[in-house]
Amino acid sequence: MQEFDQHNLTKAVIARLADTPDVRTKEIMTSLVQHLHDFAREVRLTEAEWKRGIDYLTATGQMCDDKRQEFILLSDVLGLSMLTVAMNHEKPDGCTESTVFGPFHVEGAPHYEHGADLANGAKGEPCVVYGRVTGVDGRPIADAVVETWQADADGHYDVQYEGLEVAQGRGVLKSGDDGRFHFRTIVAQAYPIPDDGPVGELLRATGRHPWRPAHLHFMIKAPGYETLVTHVFRRGDRYLDSDAVFGVRKSLIGDWVRLTDGTYRLDFDFVLNPAR
Amino acid sequence: MQEFDQHNLTKAVIARLADTPDVRTKEIMTSLVQHLHDFAREVRLTEAEWKRGIDYLTATGQMCDDKRQEFILLSDVLGLSMLTVAMNHEKPDGCTESTVFGPFHVEGAPHYEHGADLANGAKGEPCVVYGRVTGVDGRPIADAVVETWQADADGHYDVQYEGLEVAQGRGVLKSGDDGRFHFRTIVAQAYPIPDDGPVGELLRATGRHPWRPAHLHFMIKAPGYETLVTHVFRRGDRYLDSDAVFGVRKSLIGDWVRLTDGTYRLDFDFVLNPAR
Ligand SMILES: [Fe+2]
Ligand SMILES: [Fe+2]
Repeated sequence: MQEFDQHNLTKAVIARLADTPDVRTKEIMTSLVQHLHDFAREVRLTEAEWKRGIDYLTATGQMCDDKRQEFILLSDVLGLSMLTVAMNHEKPDGCTESTVFGPFHVEGAPHYEHGADLANGAKGEPCVVYGRVTGVDGRPIADAVVETWQADADGHYDVQYEGLEVAQGRGVLKSGDDGRFHFRTIVAQAYPIPDDGPVGELLRATGRHPWRPAHLHFMIKAPGYETLVTHVFRRGDRYLDSDAVFGVRKSLIGDWVRLTDGTYRLDFDFVLNPAR
Repeated sequence: MQEFDQHNLTKAVIARLADTPDVRTKEIMTSLVQHLHDFAREVRLTEAEWKRGIDYLTATGQMCDDKRQEFILLSDVLGLSMLTVAMNHEKPDGCTESTVFGPFHVEGAPHYEHGADLANGAKGEPCVVYGRVTGVDGRPIADAVVETWQADADGHYDVQYEGLEVAQGRGVLKSGDDGRFHFRTIVAQAYPIPDDGPVGELLRATGRHPWRPAHLHFMIKAPGYETLVTHVFRRGDRYLDSDAVFGVRKSLIGDWVRLTDGTYRLDFDFVLNPAR
């Protein structure tokens, strides 16, 4: 019988994974155990702190429901989401960069024709968005499925309104033969991520603000291409260099241009990477 | 504005912790972010695996209620609980070693006189336990508060029985002037940790069994001494060298001796460490 102490226990736990049938599961669990233990040893975690961690993770899980994913938010504010995106979407120069998916995407958004108003009653300053989907060679990609979602003037997504039955500020369009699409909506505004749960508590405990710079989400799919999940961020936003979820990339900043009639216009082109 | 990639993002997230008011919180969060990111980079975590992790943590949180703490179980099977115990209870030779607290302790267990039957109706072979509480110098510690809890012959704690209103196999006694206490109960049996949730899924995915060797839990408190949380494990149990939660220590193995009338007797002495 082996005697465990704080120094040899990690090796013993990893040895217990020896019979893991799936090679990748074994690789992931081995690395997880090693880093989890290294963390606990490095900080010399006390039992009270361990208990605090257990309670924190429990509260995070219990905050989740079909409209709130607190563990994604936690991953976001710890930079793990953006790290995962960055590792998995290294692309050739010229391709539109990816950023975090975020917790506000909803399956089954309504489909719209070009020119339609996706705001659908959401509050905000009127705006029109012109986009184009191409390959790296500049050739248009027709029939790309372009999904977009955004917060309203008060910084809320439709799903955050209790009892709202219709989709507001979200929708799906198809690019035309020239790769182009356009739609009406409202100007995206900066918003704080939901901070009334464990993630908000963590942000306050670490002296951080919960704000994200104004952005429009896009997910663009086309056969033969890598799915693009990204945002367009609004140039000039005060939170561009302190996004709570580390999602900003310079190449994703766009100009919402104010027109003479007081409405806004955004032009942005999306360059897809061929599927691997 | 800084441009993040998978290599400099970790530093940026840690820099965002700069204004953390509490020094210890900052230390813990800095180490946590570093190790979490190092883990993700080391295994080159895919987005599907990241999502699987989010779903797993969510399910673990949602499995918790006032009688089930799935995150403690998860910490237990990953060896984190035992590592934390080992780091925080390094004691002088001769002191009784600590082990994991486990998820089955309940506040407000009934108080008993010496000789009482703590089984209180729990199923199992009759047994009597004789214990003694002393300091390292061998002197008896009087009025120590001795709490004990255990599984029944079917490997279940009382709290695992739906609708059972009374405490079975758990109770609190006080040591006498000679440091001694004794009580009647049933023989502890090996049991599988609850494996109908995410932790069971993890054990199966990694080819591990859920069993713990037979043991009796103890928590012993006395003024001026470090609280002792430990088990006495049953010598000869087939799971002594593969405890699902890595809690066994050689010094904690005791002998349940079979008496001529077919009942059992355990003698075990507990040596407390002076409080720091
Ligand atoms: Fe967003
Ligand atoms: Fe137990």
